[in-house]
Amino acid sequence: MNQFLKVALIQQRNSNNLDHNLSKSIQNIQQAASQGAQLIVLQELYRSLYFPQIEDVSFFDLAETIPGPSTEILGHLAQELRVIIVASLFEKRASGLYHNSTVVLDKDGSIAGKYRKMHIPDDPGFYEKFYFTPGDLGFEPIDTSIGRLGVLICWDQWFPEAARLMAMKGAEILIYPTAIGWSYDDSPQEKIRQKDAWMMVQQSHAIANSIPVISCNRVGYEVDHSGQTSGIIFWGNSFIAGPQGEILAHASEDQEAVLMVKLDLQRSENVRRIWPFLRDRRIDYYHDLLKLYRD
Amino acid sequence: MNQFLKVALIQQRNSNNLDHNLSKSIQNIQQAASQGAQLIVLQELYRSLYFPQIEDVSFFDLAETIPGPSTEILGHLAQELRVIIVASLFEKRASGLYHNSTVVLDKDGSIAGKYRKMHIPDDPGFYEKFYFTPGDLGFEPIDTSIGRLGVLICWDQWFPEAARLMAMKGAEILIYPTAIGWSYDDSPQEKIRQKDAWMMVQQSHAIANSIPVISCNRVGYEVDHSGQTSGIIFWGNSFIAGPQGEILAHASEDQEAVLMVKLDLQRSENVRRIWPFLRDRRIDYYHDLLKLYRD
Repeated sequence: MNQFLKVALIQQRNSNNLDHNLSKSIQNIQQAASQGAQLIVLQELYRSLYFPQIEDVSFFDLAETIPGPSTEILGHLAQELRVIIVASLFEKRASGLYHNSTVVLDKDGSIAGKYRKMHIPDDPGFYEKFYFTPGDLGFEPIDTSIGRLGVLICWDQWFPEAARLMAMKGAEILIYPTAIGWSYDDSPQEKIRQKDAWMMVQQSHAIANSIPVISCNRVGYEVDHSGQTSGIIFWGNSFIAGPQGEILAHASEDQEAVLMVKLDLQRSENVRRIWPFLRDRRIDYYHDLLKLYRD
Repeated sequence: MNQFLKVALIQQRNSNNLDHNLSKSIQNIQQAASQGAQLIVLQELYRSLYFPQIEDVSFFDLAETIPGPSTEILGHLAQELRVIIVASLFEKRASGLYHNSTVVLDKDGSIAGKYRKMHIPDDPGFYEKFYFTPGDLGFEPIDTSIGRLGVLICWDQWFPEAARLMAMKGAEILIYPTAIGWSYDDSPQEKIRQKDAWMMVQQSHAIANSIPVISCNRVGYEVDHSGQTSGIIFWGNSFIAGPQGEILAHASEDQEAVLMVKLDLQRSENVRRIWPFLRDRRIDYYHDLLKLYRD
């Protein structure tokens, strides 16, 4: 890996027009690449609306195989532009077996690897347990021509265990495609608490592991056609943080954005020398982490 | 545990006059109790200067047994004021065997329990591995008349594993007595990054576990008499955060302070219902957390 790496993320407002979403993503990838981006991250389920807002069997039609249409299109684009593309999509593994997955396309157009979301949320408006089987690939970073990437997805971001396992296997950057937003019913104070918590917990993974974090969220309001909830206001706020959790770039809460940062990867080594956390983990007393609860 | 709990922390500037430090702590405890505090937290090594700034065998004279002088004095005070006191001190366990420990005095004056710092730092100006044997009591919360306390100490705050293990054993509050500061040589930007990282990583333990955090730091400059470094500017910034990591009270970087907050412990239950992280931990893929590195 070189010392400097130009990374970009694309914060996008999606519609129910899949082709329109895709062409917007392609346009943004081209723009980022033209400005020198070497690694480009798309948001969770980049191709569609956030369909898990309701449980509807017809939405399984949105799923695709890996390899499949997205890896075909984005693979060609990656090869043409000589960039790495990180794309989160709805994976159809078999009839009746689906995952929330992220695929990494290397700059030769090949599939460098994929990650299947390990922690699956389920709460009103986010019915992911209906659609996605929890991943069975574990917490394995993906090797690419520009380094080892710790790709995780959305709900994973609340679990320090996931980030730690990636870092312990040499991940040089943590990457979170995500789709998180507010309910209309949340108070202004609750909205701030949720958004701040979401940023801080990911920044803390940078801090605890001394590596940068890229978090790419969608933006904009998506209606709940079932009428059960008042829909989700995806809160944007995508960001790129350095290895002390410091914010290097930060998108707004309501606009589309292409964020770009030139990361200095040498800083991770330097920070680990002044804050040598890996040196001091008490693995002789961590065994209960393998339980659900210590009762 | 009642729904509401009034907690306080005492951010103090210490001198090399042990009796003066103690009487200031007592005065502050009395003040906090008079304002209704039920739980009062002192900073790390409350009785002395931060002596691990240099390695000097004579400083072992500062150590005391548990029970010993501090538990005697603070136990009586706790009983008199009917409060819980959390006090971090230099524990002499045997000749040649010392710990960085925190003792919890219950409001009947008894020792509710003690915690021995598990993660021990060592970097220039913080030579703790010279003085303190890493704890052998594990990550066990301490039961008191007002609830179960997850007491940890300073360097522990950088390890999500420690907070998680406390929460998984029912800790209702995380408590960090601490002693952290800047070097004179740090740039203004580096100072901000370090202080922000220190706050965020602890706030993230609140977030990931949906419980409040109390972090009590010392304040003020302490000289390095060896001349090896330019001393430490302890950065204060003690704080109390709620179960979404939100700051409820926050001390300055250069003044002594008694911070007090009325915690609503019902909020932890409520937050765990909207963000049920404990439900979804992937313990079937966490086994490598028991390694130092996955190589």
